[in-house]
Amino acid sequence: MSGRTTRQRVLRVTISPDGPPESSAQADFLAAEEPLGIRVDGTALTMTMRTPGDDIELAAGFLVSEAVVRSPDDIAEIKLCDGTSCGHGDHEDLGNIADVSLAPGVPVTAGARRNFMTTSACGVCGKASIEDICVLPHAALAEDQTRFSPAVLASLPNRLREEQRVFSRTGGLHAAGLFTATGEVVAVREDVGRHNAVDKIVGWALLSGRLPLSGCALLVSGRASFELVQKAVLAGIPLLAAVSAPSSLAVSLAEQAGLTLVGFLRGPSMNVYAGAERLIT
Amino acid sequence: MSGRTTRQRVLRVTISPDGPPESSAQADFLAAEEPLGIRVDGTALTMTMRTPGDDIELAAGFLVSEAVVRSPDDIAEIKLCDGTSCGHGDHEDLGNIADVSLAPGVPVTAGARRNFMTTSACGVCGKASIEDICVLPHAALAEDQTRFSPAVLASLPNRLREEQRVFSRTGGLHAAGLFTATGEVVAVREDVGRHNAVDKIVGWALLSGRLPLSGCALLVSGRASFELVQKAVLAGIPLLAAVSAPSSLAVSLAEQAGLTLVGFLRGPSMNVYAGAERLIT
Repeated sequence: MSGRTTRQRVLRVTISPDGPPESSAQADFLAAEEPLGIRVDGTALTMTMRTPGDDIELAAGFLVSEAVVRSPDDIAEIKLCDGTSCGHGDHEDLGNIADVSLAPGVPVTAGARRNFMTTSACGVCGKASIEDICVLPHAALAEDQTRFSPAVLASLPNRLREEQRVFSRTGGLHAAGLFTATGEVVAVREDVGRHNAVDKIVGWALLSGRLPLSGCALLVSGRASFELVQKAVLAGIPLLAAVSAPSSLAVSLAEQAGLTLVGFLRGPSMNVYAGAERLIT
Repeated sequence: MSGRTTRQRVLRVTISPDGPPESSAQADFLAAEEPLGIRVDGTALTMTMRTPGDDIELAAGFLVSEAVVRSPDDIAEIKLCDGTSCGHGDHEDLGNIADVSLAPGVPVTAGARRNFMTTSACGVCGKASIEDICVLPHAALAEDQTRFSPAVLASLPNRLREEQRVFSRTGGLHAAGLFTATGEVVAVREDVGRHNAVDKIVGWALLSGRLPLSGCALLVSGRASFELVQKAVLAGIPLLAAVSAPSSLAVSLAEQAGLTLVGFLRGPSMNVYAGAERLIT
């Protein structure tokens, strides 16, 4: 497995109002980005560009987000592919394939929903997607009675930033943080892809027997998309907060699934787009 | 086709140091996010979550980025699916499928590279991906002798922001802007997905006969990933700039393809990660 950062020489250029630009060679750290292939029972399922690290959790979380697995017992084994198991010894062992064996009797329904969305003749529309997700197990989120204090929520972005070790070196990573309703950090993961950071948290929770994540709040850097809402719902997380704006479909899905969706969580303020009844106001 | 923004009631909550939080219902605008399915000669190729608008250009640009088409003549027709052509009249016409017919003799090599990356036993590693992309047609970028002034580059983020009409309403969109070497705006597109914003620009360029985009600079909001570098290379764009950090693989690919890659383009400064010889310093 490769590192999470790489060192890179850069030319730092600064323009000047009354002269030519100044430039100097400097060392910089970059967030590592590499592909991870996810195979289930020998079949290639997907490939994601991710920051190496927590790859087993990433694969596990992806399978939760795709509604393939719901319990750690559904997975027999996840191993990272090395040169030997690939049958190729002629290149570096990058560990860039996660090889998942499902438990006996767990069907490879992997990608069923995705394939439906991709191939159905006319079902590729927001409405169909939302109906599709809402029949899934953890959509019973509405039963989660946890209430969240706005003051605690307002404190989370700073807590997340404090935990972002790779970001502080590279300035180039998304992060997802899982918190209790009283604002304690449960888990933080960083990745070049926001969806991967969330999958890494969900996979960690699955493998440590903590799903569903009732009573927790998930904070993501940047925006809240449909995909992130979907992942939160499938992990049983009652509140998703984002530092920036949600999309229209993220709000629609949150409303239908009973998820509390907070956006523009910055400084002392926030916008509540769905599930406002969980806020203590 | 749906609109680019939707109106939404939100609860605006602000905490107070010496009292209960204040909250008020407000109207907010959200960036629209809906799935777009792309079909080529009747076969579903991919589904992307995008902001509606410029969907034909998005489909065309995606096909350039996948190395399926290189000239407008490679495409016979792209139409957005409606209820009639889907054979279903029982739901709203959302226009969420782009139906592409390739010109006679153009093979559906669509997704060939993607499938390779997804399914090959051990080829899912950065090295393989980079070698793969570098044999593609527009990798002759190194021949583009355009030079760019740092002062012009430093002016682009403000120019891009001025052109972002949807962002100013929603605060929730990525943008990509294509500029000449003297800083004139050629095209700007916004989308919930940065990759879609780039595909919309590349597709517009393809359909208006402007590929390859020699001599141009492409600026993206946020980070520069491997995927964005790949899209720039395939469109023949010699300089890609990002407001935030590039990933390690983005830099590797830029170096190998002869693309100038600028990151952290903010205020008077920028970092040049690859192809610094195109900067006038």
